[in-house]
Amino acid sequence: MSSTAEHGPPAARGDRAAALHRLRRSHEQILLGTLARHGTLSRAELATYTGLSRTTLFAIVADLLASQLVVENTTRAAGQRGRPAGLLSLNPGGGLYVGIDMGRHRVRVAIANVAHEVVATGRHALPAPSRWADRADVAIGLVERLADDAGISLAPLRTVGLGLPGPVSAEVTDTDRKGSDSARSRAQRGLVRTFHERFGVPVSVDNNTRLAALAETTWGAARGARDVLYVRLSDGVGGGLVLGGQLVRGTRGAAGEVGHVTVDPDGPPCYCGGRGCLETYVGGLALVRECRRRGTEVSDVDGLVQLVRDGDPAVCAVVAEAGRTLGVVLAGLATEVDPERIVVGGPVSALGEPLLAPVREAVAALTLPAFPDPPPVVGSELGDGGGALGAIAGQMAAVETGLAPN
Amino acid sequence: MSSTAEHGPPAARGDRAAALHRLRRSHEQILLGTLARHGTLSRAELATYTGLSRTTLFAIVADLLASQLVVENTTRAAGQRGRPAGLLSLNPGGGLYVGIDMGRHRVRVAIANVAHEVVATGRHALPAPSRWADRADVAIGLVERLADDAGISLAPLRTVGLGLPGPVSAEVTDTDRKGSDSARSRAQRGLVRTFHERFGVPVSVDNNTRLAALAETTWGAARGARDVLYVRLSDGVGGGLVLGGQLVRGTRGAAGEVGHVTVDPDGPPCYCGGRGCLETYVGGLALVRECRRRGTEVSDVDGLVQLVRDGDPAVCAVVAEAGRTLGVVLAGLATEVDPERIVVGGPVSALGEPLLAPVREAVAALTLPAFPDPPPVVGSELGDGGGALGAIAGQMAAVETGLAPN
Repeated sequence: MSSTAEHGPPAARGDRAAALHRLRRSHEQILLGTLARHGTLSRAELATYTGLSRTTLFAIVADLLASQLVVENTTRAAGQRGRPAGLLSLNPGGGLYVGIDMGRHRVRVAIANVAHEVVATGRHALPAPSRWADRADVAIGLVERLADDAGISLAPLRTVGLGLPGPVSAEVTDTDRKGSDSARSRAQRGLVRTFHERFGVPVSVDNNTRLAALAETTWGAARGARDVLYVRLSDGVGGGLVLGGQLVRGTRGAAGEVGHVTVDPDGPPCYCGGRGCLETYVGGLALVRECRRRGTEVSDVDGLVQLVRDGDPAVCAVVAEAGRTLGVVLAGLATEVDPERIVVGGPVSALGEPLLAPVREAVAALTLPAFPDPPPVVGSELGDGGGALGAIAGQMAAVETGLAPN
Repeated sequence: MSSTAEHGPPAARGDRAAALHRLRRSHEQILLGTLARHGTLSRAELATYTGLSRTTLFAIVADLLASQLVVENTTRAAGQRGRPAGLLSLNPGGGLYVGIDMGRHRVRVAIANVAHEVVATGRHALPAPSRWADRADVAIGLVERLADDAGISLAPLRTVGLGLPGPVSAEVTDTDRKGSDSARSRAQRGLVRTFHERFGVPVSVDNNTRLAALAETTWGAARGARDVLYVRLSDGVGGGLVLGGQLVRGTRGAAGEVGHVTVDPDGPPCYCGGRGCLETYVGGLALVRECRRRGTEVSDVDGLVQLVRDGDPAVCAVVAEAGRTLGVVLAGLATEVDPERIVVGGPVSALGEPLLAPVREAVAALTLPAFPDPPPVVGSELGDGGGALGAIAGQMAAVETGLAPN
């Protein structure tokens, strides 16, 4: 459900052109999927397997060869004469994806090839607060350095995926859009333009926490699952929802904002303007504040983790109550979406079982008793790198479903 | 996300066969979609528009003609010699879908053609409690009578969609399944077999309340919306979730069970085995019970509706509190899934604004303030017929996305 823009000369935008373009993309996906399943095939075999006409097939194969997504090995069978037969296969060293997570305090980058192998990852701290343009410069520099260090050429780059904090709506990637826009949308659109100008490929954008949910589903604690509820506990609380293997974006780009589900309409004020949001009970800042209120001096989330490891009873009680509150909210959402797995990530999840056990108990107690196996609640596996990996997973998912790029 | 079974001789089940079958279906969808867009086309034009080879195209067109989903008109251009050119178009009077909602107290049937026109609907009351086999007999009789009355032949029937109360899991349509099974699954599988044997076409199954959600999205109060949260208030409370135009089924077939989201873990016991479920606060039985507890004699939901219309202050207060409770739960779910619209249906929704206004207020107050337009909360439009219509919408959605039948 990630969206994409090609900034540059606008393509013909008629319905007819769009329909033909979608059809072309869908043929391309059929070809790539067939090669992924069978390994190496001749054009004749590809035509048989896909049912495409020779004209269509040859044109698409030519494009895929030019983009280095597919490679051709020419062989000559024993005793064969004339032009050697070309054998086609996916090029694992060919197509590249770059994923960038532009957080508030750091930039994370990952580079993967078309065979789903992550070939480089990196991180660069940001002096807070940084302007978006400065963060983009840092990210571009980091991509170039990682590629250099790994001896990778960025020439076969297919797309760049961008993870950003806060809500991201679909129209942000429409860089030709006219008319009124929020400051946030304008800033996000500016970033899309910057990365497109530097790398010359389509740029997709989504919320970085949502992308982390997709990364956990692709490579992490929920790999193999189709329906995943993900919550990220940092200073605040965010999340993401994956259903049928696809990231749910929502009508206004705000899906997955579990941190602002109301626990108590008369509860503590939240920075969002509401009251009693989940974040005000289980976010890192809220936990530290509550420990202090009860008389335990805690510096930050790291200090909290240490005190729980030391078995501090007051801090453990605060964490257990937070786990219970989180579990009640997650149980409600799980009753509605019936996920296969619930993943808890973010720095606060380093608290481990003292936090997760009460979450698990609440989920087991408060989801439908008719189903004896409640969804497992597990810690995340990818840590802080999830956003950048998710930005790559989003691009791959778009290719596989024929939804995006271009 | 509806699933489907063809009961009868099992098809080859290898991965290869399945992949080829999916490919064939996807070509079929490309052809049907192209005809839907362009109206009438020759085979040559279809080949140009779709990029399919002549061999593939001719084979698929032959199948579509045989199934009467597509019709051919032969014309001869002025001065043309030889065999007349065939012009192909969708057959609005051809393919038929039957939707059946097997409720606890009545059977509902709808019949629609491939052009999405509903051509007949009917209802038959059931003496409660009825056995499944008896309900199936009533449903089959009703389908036959409706077709007779409308002068429709069931010969071009494509599929039958079945809506059932309670959880429906995907494997129920796998009628060749061996091994352990719940009594519910066995009963559901028996129904699939009965309908398949009578009508000789694939039978898809889903929860009837979920299907009503899809019907409201296709034809009712949420038409045009892609992401819809639906809640049905009857004696109990059920619901359905539509995201990206597709029904969410969930990992165990239990998605949409908003009635069992926990409002208060220490609340009243619920028939599901839990405590404090939403259903125990806003279901019809709960509302009637609460009015009686406060000293107002109310017979049933109809009586409740009448008392609210008469402006009974005690009953209006009970309804307003229930609306508030429902709104808090829906706001939490809306924060997670960010729907375009929230639809409230079922007999209790006849209470109208005295119930809906407090729902709307709570949703506006408790969803993210960063988005000034909360999702609209509206009453359903299709009433009790939604389940049967949804069973048809599910089949059409399956055809359009190439997901199901066969």
